[in-house]
Amino acid sequence: MIKIGILGSTGYVGLELARLISNHPEAEVIFLDSRSYENKSYSSIFPNMKKIIDAPCVSINLEDEASLAGIDLLFCALPHGLSQKAVQTAYKLGIKVIDMSADFRIKSAPVYEEWYGVKQEALKELDAAAYGLCELHREAIKKAEIIANPGCYPTSIILALYPLLKEKAVDTETLVVDSKSGVSGAGRNLNDAILYGQCNESVKAYSIGNHRHIPEIEQELSLAAGEAVMLQFTPHLIPMTRGILSSIYFKNKKNMSDKDIEDIYKQYYSEEFFIRLLQQGELPQTKAVYGTNYCDIGFKTDKRTNRIILVSAIDNLVKGAAGQAVQNMNLLFNLKETTGLQLTPIWP
Amino acid sequence: MIKIGILGSTGYVGLELARLISNHPEAEVIFLDSRSYENKSYSSIFPNMKKIIDAPCVSINLEDEASLAGIDLLFCALPHGLSQKAVQTAYKLGIKVIDMSADFRIKSAPVYEEWYGVKQEALKELDAAAYGLCELHREAIKKAEIIANPGCYPTSIILALYPLLKEKAVDTETLVVDSKSGVSGAGRNLNDAILYGQCNESVKAYSIGNHRHIPEIEQELSLAAGEAVMLQFTPHLIPMTRGILSSIYFKNKKNMSDKDIEDIYKQYYSEEFFIRLLQQGELPQTKAVYGTNYCDIGFKTDKRTNRIILVSAIDNLVKGAAGQAVQNMNLLFNLKETTGLQLTPIWP
Amino acid sequence: MIKIGILGSTGYVGLELARLISNHPEAEVIFLDSRSYENKSYSSIFPNMKKIIDAPCVSINLEDEASLAGIDLLFCALPHGLSQKAVQTAYKLGIKVIDMSADFRIKSAPVYEEWYGVKQEALKELDAAAYGLCELHREAIKKAEIIANPGCYPTSIILALYPLLKEKAVDTETLVVDSKSGVSGAGRNLNDAILYGQCNESVKAYSIGNHRHIPEIEQELSLAAGEAVMLQFTPHLIPMTRGILSSIYFKNKKNMSDKDIEDIYKQYYSEEFFIRLLQQGELPQTKAVYGTNYCDIGFKTDKRTNRIILVSAIDNLVKGAAGQAVQNMNLLFNLKETTGLQLTPIWP
Amino acid sequence: MIKIGILGSTGYVGLELARLISNHPEAEVIFLDSRSYENKSYSSIFPNMKKIIDAPCVSINLEDEASLAGIDLLFCALPHGLSQKAVQTAYKLGIKVIDMSADFRIKSAPVYEEWYGVKQEALKELDAAAYGLCELHREAIKKAEIIANPGCYPTSIILALYPLLKEKAVDTETLVVDSKSGVSGAGRNLNDAILYGQCNESVKAYSIGNHRHIPEIEQELSLAAGEAVMLQFTPHLIPMTRGILSSIYFKNKKNMSDKDIEDIYKQYYSEEFFIRLLQQGELPQTKAVYGTNYCDIGFKTDKRTNRIILVSAIDNLVKGAAGQAVQNMNLLFNLKETTGLQLTPIWP
Repeated sequence: MIKIGILGSTGYVGLELARLISNHPEAEVIFLDSRSYENKSYSSIFPNMKKIIDAPCVSINLEDEASLAGIDLLFCALPHGLSQKAVQTAYKLGIKVIDMSADFRIKSAPVYEEWYGVKQEALKELDAAAYGLCELHREAIKKAEIIANPGCYPTSIILALYPLLKEKAVDTETLVVDSKSGVSGAGRNLNDAILYGQCNESVKAYSIGNHRHIPEIEQELSLAAGEAVMLQFTPHLIPMTRGILSSIYFKNKKNMSDKDIEDIYKQYYSEEFFIRLLQQGELPQTKAVYGTNYCDIGFKTDKRTNRIILVSAIDNLVKGAAGQAVQNMNLLFNLKETTGLQLTPIWP
Repeated sequence: MIKIGILGSTGYVGLELARLISNHPEAEVIFLDSRSYENKSYSSIFPNMKKIIDAPCVSINLEDEASLAGIDLLFCALPHGLSQKAVQTAYKLGIKVIDMSADFRIKSAPVYEEWYGVKQEALKELDAAAYGLCELHREAIKKAEIIANPGCYPTSIILALYPLLKEKAVDTETLVVDSKSGVSGAGRNLNDAILYGQCNESVKAYSIGNHRHIPEIEQELSLAAGEAVMLQFTPHLIPMTRGILSSIYFKNKKNMSDKDIEDIYKQYYSEEFFIRLLQQGELPQTKAVYGTNYCDIGFKTDKRTNRIILVSAIDNLVKGAAGQAVQNMNLLFNLKETTGLQLTPIWP
Repeated sequence: MIKIGILGSTGYVGLELARLISNHPEAEVIFLDSRSYENKSYSSIFPNMKKIIDAPCVSINLEDEASLAGIDLLFCALPHGLSQKAVQTAYKLGIKVIDMSADFRIKSAPVYEEWYGVKQEALKELDAAAYGLCELHREAIKKAEIIANPGCYPTSIILALYPLLKEKAVDTETLVVDSKSGVSGAGRNLNDAILYGQCNESVKAYSIGNHRHIPEIEQELSLAAGEAVMLQFTPHLIPMTRGILSSIYFKNKKNMSDKDIEDIYKQYYSEEFFIRLLQQGELPQTKAVYGTNYCDIGFKTDKRTNRIILVSAIDNLVKGAAGQAVQNMNLLFNLKETTGLQLTPIWP
Repeated sequence: MIKIGILGSTGYVGLELARLISNHPEAEVIFLDSRSYENKSYSSIFPNMKKIIDAPCVSINLEDEASLAGIDLLFCALPHGLSQKAVQTAYKLGIKVIDMSADFRIKSAPVYEEWYGVKQEALKELDAAAYGLCELHREAIKKAEIIANPGCYPTSIILALYPLLKEKAVDTETLVVDSKSGVSGAGRNLNDAILYGQCNESVKAYSIGNHRHIPEIEQELSLAAGEAVMLQFTPHLIPMTRGILSSIYFKNKKNMSDKDIEDIYKQYYSEEFFIRLLQQGELPQTKAVYGTNYCDIGFKTDKRTNRIILVSAIDNLVKGAAGQAVQNMNLLFNLKETTGLQLTPIWP
């Protein structure tokens, strides 16, 4: 059994980790860290966990290295900035760590500092970190001590674009991405904008052109394309709890047919358990991946405009966060990659 | 492996059975019956099932006994009335059957006929059927060939009331039950009342005093109470997909204290995996059981009015239908009762 | 034009007042008070008000009597406890005041103090206040200087029960009320329980038997019944923004027929613009009153149990708060009672 | 009083017309046509209309010209294809008609026939029809006998783009529009895809590159741009009842600054009552226009990509259908354009 600790266990990502680990046959939770809920039973905070995890939260003091004793893996679900110190501590102690924040996703410290307004103090750890998009960086992940677990929007966008970028089929200058996220993506912080009365029965765009996931997405798209990619990205908040749908627009650079595109996706992804390629005429919807680690991908070519439109759907808390983290854990510990993650989406 | 067939697999109960069986280590689906979707791939109807069940639906002809060959267990998710014939066929062939309709729940044929307006033609099978509320009829279920899987409202109400009825603590004359159900309880039939635009942002009562679950509930409550119980029952439709919350009101016949009541629930249910007793001051909510087979029960005594108020929460499609059916299957086939059902509720 | 000021204008009740006044031909807003949003444009807080009310909020200092100069009517939408001082100031200055809090609803100071845990310091004003349930206390309201605007649950319950209580048709000992409210009823305060992720797709009961609206409801029901009425009341939170549905159960004390009951309701309410009596077989739903001042009332008799079940629906922010306040204003200023309130509910 | 008839009054657009006319001081409904609900009271179909419109529906026979006698204006809310005949009848009788279908929106009969698969039989009437986007075609509308009321997506897109197109600021080759619509946009027809259980808690794209609103949008954009515009358009269905948000992406052809863009919008729209220009840093949301005829428009320039991103929000049933129809009626009958439409959006 892999012994795990979760820092920041009372946010939605921490909770989703706890849910998935509770279903995992090879891992067990050693501690659930929370500053705000110290000594409170986990199931008193999240009543879904009743009789599943009733243990109290603890408040981990990172100054005290003994506090991490006895675990094989640390999941760090702290806000960006705060993660740096935690990851440094784990790394020094030789404890593998999967960080859910942005702190180790951006390979360029200056770019990170510009977009996040935080100093990158953990340069050695940054260097040691693998970007944990499992389908694309599997071998690097297996060897790493530190995993930077990808952001939710980046996961939905990079997985969809990767094969066509690799095949030079994307006119990247024309790339526009319009994403729609459920409200859980905004976390569990007390914030007027995510009160039920404020966001129910409404949709809005936010952070147009300056969302912090942009440098992460551009880094990975550029890597795949073999050239610098600049992205037009707009996230939207829609009235549902979970799910991200990304609609991706670009000119069909090589005039590919539907068959060409389908073949490329099959070539890259037909062996991937968590990627489901939809058939011609089908388009993804977030309900179809609810509560699971799947990423559904569909596409449409528009002959009038010579564009390809990709659509991908994930559950932002699973493939977009905790599920991918567990997938990374499985890779790190040489388990079958799907262990604990063969879930069937809930419908309706 | 238990080989199962599902009649009526494209309603929500049939789909939920397919979802749960897809996660069950000891059962596999042999056929998915559907008249309307014959030859259509199951995952083309329900895109959540992509790569999980892609097989096409078949249309089972019950006149042809060979059509049920090769299965160990038949789940019948047909509308009431239609189930009688299917159960008779299975029974004759010696195939165990779990019927999700009301056809075998009401022990009295005249009462069934009065409330459902359908003739009870399967008297022999009615006699052979066990009422599949697992926690209360476990031994009878294990021995039965036919299981009448309980209704959703009845499950939420009977489980909550049973211990106090057995202990004669309920003034049954004063019993009022007010239940709230998510829209999936109304099925997947094309019906103006369950269009999104008609039921979103609204709540209404329906079938006051004449809902068809009343005789089923009264039958079981009377059995527990050892006297005829007549129920005031009102279901409500509320704008959410899954879940039933039942609020149950009655006079505290034996002036029990909170401690007395707590002790009784512990005595009856502390060994029950799927029943979670909430602590003093906690009250159930449907989100806490989402997608799982749990029934959460809480209570409050009101000293001013000398009433006890019980509140129970289930997922109508799981403990209220398909989950309990799988629990019944486990009992029928001598598996551990929780096999395939140790799910952690999704939150948020 | 009636010149009005609103204290506490940035809660949902204050906002709904501003919305209704913006449609009222005989009233205009002089100031919108808010401590937290002082100097911020109202439409920057509530973007629906763009080009309708762009004026900035002001922070009224009640110590300075000049701060209320120039208004004819003060709407006080402050939390209970805080209202007392504001009402005293207005009363002293001879400014009519409609108080949306509970501070002047409970005629008995000790009862108020027991349930609200706040000292009643404004006894003179309490004495001068009329309980503003317009249909029942119209004449007293017209003459009053201070109106205690009713609570949302009380409005939905008292209006439904009043005619049958007056006619002694209610066995009050058996009275059980089960109400369901949209999330806006909990206000706009930052509170974990009303985050979208916490309350979407869930229903729960709360404050069973000890909700603070109980003494208010009992006061008015007792007045109508001519005897002390004790209530079993349970509110529920359901995932929608607006609306309250109350389901009311009691024994049919005088064995009234459907026709008898219908006649009584017609006798009391057929002239009431805002009360809509549904026909036999129809039941209220909250969507049918969305955004308006209507109270829809339906009933069902259950011959098996000899109970009458009443169901009423209101919009908690309109008839349950700001709409009724405007109706009270119309009465106070001798306007046609429906002025500014002849709204057609939005559907879907 | 303008006497109006509504053909197809029991769809959501017909209902919204009835709601708005019920609040209009200068118009009254003479008949509500419905084939399916003939002789049924309108308020028995839509309980919100109780005591507002209780009259029964009639089934108008267009063969019988007398059936339209006594009205000044016909609103035609029939499906496309069926409208042609109705408009021809009214035109022949000299009755003004506002058609809500697509039948008279597309000026080119072959284009209409290609996209809608229906023969254009009413060429004379097509020629006589004005495209009823009030802010852009006000003078033509005032003189017309037939108004083709715009589609919902077109309204949200054309209003946002018009000023910048006129000013040649849009690189139309790069134009991508991603729209999100509430479920009421799909109408009230019985259709599996709009059952609550199917679309709640999900988002999906549909009709990518081939939605029937495309030729209508392109026609008007081309007119504004003075050159042929080809559009990349993707609509999405999101889980809310009302509202459309359109996100519009294109290269900033003339390198305009924020100030330049703001000035252009002010120049075109500062006198328009129903268009609300948001300030720098503000972005539209559909809740802010709920139930009203407003169109909120915001923009953002992205210096990195040299794109302008426009975002517009409307209520699809009001400015996107019935509200604009009433605005057209006001123009046709020389009323103040805002008559009956000065509504304050409901929030929350």
